[in-house]
Amino acid sequence: MSEAAPRPATLTGPVEIVGTGLLGTSIALACRRAGLEVLLSDVSPEHVRTASGLGAGRPAQPGDEPQLVVVAVPPAFLGAEIATVLRARRSRDDVVVTDVGSVKAGLHAQVVRAVGPELAARYVGSHPMAGSERSGPLAASYALFEGRPWAITRHEGNPARAVALVEELVVLCGALPVRFTPEEHDRAVARTSHVPHLVAALVAARLAEAPGEHLALSGQGVRDVTRVAAGSPELYGQIVAANAEAVVDLLGQVRSGLDAMIAALTAEDGVRLRALLARGVDGTRAIPGKHGGPVRPTPSVFVSVPDEPGVLARLFAAAGESEVNIEDVRIEHDLGRAVGLVELIVEESRGDHLAASLESRGWVTHR
Amino acid sequence: MSEAAPRPATLTGPVEIVGTGLLGTSIALACRRAGLEVLLSDVSPEHVRTASGLGAGRPAQPGDEPQLVVVAVPPAFLGAEIATVLRARRSRDDVVVTDVGSVKAGLHAQVVRAVGPELAARYVGSHPMAGSERSGPLAASYALFEGRPWAITRHEGNPARAVALVEELVVLCGALPVRFTPEEHDRAVARTSHVPHLVAALVAARLAEAPGEHLALSGQGVRDVTRVAAGSPELYGQIVAANAEAVVDLLGQVRSGLDAMIAALTAEDGVRLRALLARGVDGTRAIPGKHGGPVRPTPSVFVSVPDEPGVLARLFAAAGESEVNIEDVRIEHDLGRAVGLVELIVEESRGDHLAASLESRGWVTHR
Repeated sequence: MSEAAPRPATLTGPVEIVGTGLLGTSIALACRRAGLEVLLSDVSPEHVRTASGLGAGRPAQPGDEPQLVVVAVPPAFLGAEIATVLRARRSRDDVVVTDVGSVKAGLHAQVVRAVGPELAARYVGSHPMAGSERSGPLAASYALFEGRPWAITRHEGNPARAVALVEELVVLCGALPVRFTPEEHDRAVARTSHVPHLVAALVAARLAEAPGEHLALSGQGVRDVTRVAAGSPELYGQIVAANAEAVVDLLGQVRSGLDAMIAALTAEDGVRLRALLARGVDGTRAIPGKHGGPVRPTPSVFVSVPDEPGVLARLFAAAGESEVNIEDVRIEHDLGRAVGLVELIVEESRGDHLAASLESRGWVTHR
Repeated sequence: MSEAAPRPATLTGPVEIVGTGLLGTSIALACRRAGLEVLLSDVSPEHVRTASGLGAGRPAQPGDEPQLVVVAVPPAFLGAEIATVLRARRSRDDVVVTDVGSVKAGLHAQVVRAVGPELAARYVGSHPMAGSERSGPLAASYALFEGRPWAITRHEGNPARAVALVEELVVLCGALPVRFTPEEHDRAVARTSHVPHLVAALVAARLAEAPGEHLALSGQGVRDVTRVAAGSPELYGQIVAANAEAVVDLLGQVRSGLDAMIAALTAEDGVRLRALLARGVDGTRAIPGKHGGPVRPTPSVFVSVPDEPGVLARLFAAAGESEVNIEDVRIEHDLGRAVGLVELIVEESRGDHLAASLESRGWVTHR
């Protein structure tokens, strides 16, 4: 923190992508779009052919001299692969290596252990907060990272030049660079990603045990709470295991909260129960809002629509004529009926205008 | 269950609504729309005037003889109000009373204690799975219940005629009647509503304690998991306290799961951890899908859009030209950039067509 600001670097390429899955190929496409030369490698030659066919770059050759290497292999192979890349480029002290792994502190330590601190200084960790339920190069897009946070986890040995080069890659991909130490990063994602995922899985598991007819009363709330729990147990198991210390610490806090909640309900202590719920309200307000600003209360307009092709186009055309910017949309899934309820979330003070305008155009709305 | 099917009843009105808040006034509007006479009462004369002004009915008078009384007062006052209504109509054995409360078994018992089993037989509990973050008569709409499940909690003493009359009200409101015993209902909503809410509050509380910069890494997952926790601590405190037994039982199961998860992480037991996560995946698949059918995997098409008025209208018009029915929409909130990512969820087998069609119209998509 006390050192001078890094002097500007210039990402001129070539960029080598090791691992042409969803993330690697998406980064490759963004680099190609910016006019950089991109070299592709993967244990699967088919993945390289596919990515290359999509215009993501050409297969890497032994004599290539990349300026930046991005390692985008599955979590379990990251440490070994980063070490291999660093060793292979030992003679070129200007090469910079980064990765896209979800957990950073153990990985940094593993790399230092494998290649020593001097060589490890050329490795700057990074983690884009983007993904998809699909995987592989065919799911890739240069736009995958647009507007997403992308953590950069520098460590003590990193020269400013190396950090600036990775930051340039992040900006080139349309993402927002956010700097953390590896340890801070891991504590942050334990809180904002790993613990929410694990606790959602525990709530979802209760549904697996439910009498089927009870689930007829499932509303939007339980669907939202449990949605992330649909993710791959293999992948998320690897990720949370790699961040076990920070995750276990926070799960312990969840457990204390759960014990307090059970005690309050058992003792019929309404004051304590409300305090626990109020702390949750505080938490929802702490999440940064759209465009990074504070979360403002936004009014919703609900519109009943028939479930037929083109109805959303007509609805949004009507909303467009009202000259109200729709901030968010939510379609509530109904049960057994061919009618949907669309929630339009708009700027404060524009809700009444939108509702009136839609009503005047024949739509059924409520607030 | 062994008795004959109820013979058809006819809801001809008048319907009296006691409590003209969001739910009461919405039911009144639906009844008025069906041509029934509606009588309104509330401790707040202003609420009655407002609801009446909205066309929800006329103020109730002492000589009125309603066929059906709907008690829609706050949870804490339901039992006493239902008892008052039953006593006041003691001489009319054809009157039926229902309510819209979120928890049923204790309420049924309270009514029986207050007025005796014979008079209590005229009371059939019910619970519409609908609401809004807004309250009061001005937020009401006859369309509030369209396509929503609406539990009807009959008890042993209820004549079939009374249950059928309440069911007719539910259908008139556009909702889907689902029959439960009061005890079954409470166990079902503990699982599908109360426990998800409480656990979401515990996860959200961890965010309230976070260093602010950590929350920059908040993605869509944590927003979804914690969204319901923004609800009123007063209201939800009352609701879950009234269903404490079923809620505490399930919270105990969540705690066992949490202990198993902490143990698996601490012991680096990947097999056990994956099994716990896989149980969560099973749970997400158990939730009924749109139109009550099984949940099918639906492909998503992501589209990058500038954050400007009318862009969604143009996007949905383009999607409409592709003749693909959009099943669901999700707009991902970005951080600090004026670009949004819209996720369009479509029927299986239509994703590739939609993406290609949108691309050909100049939209940037990825899968």
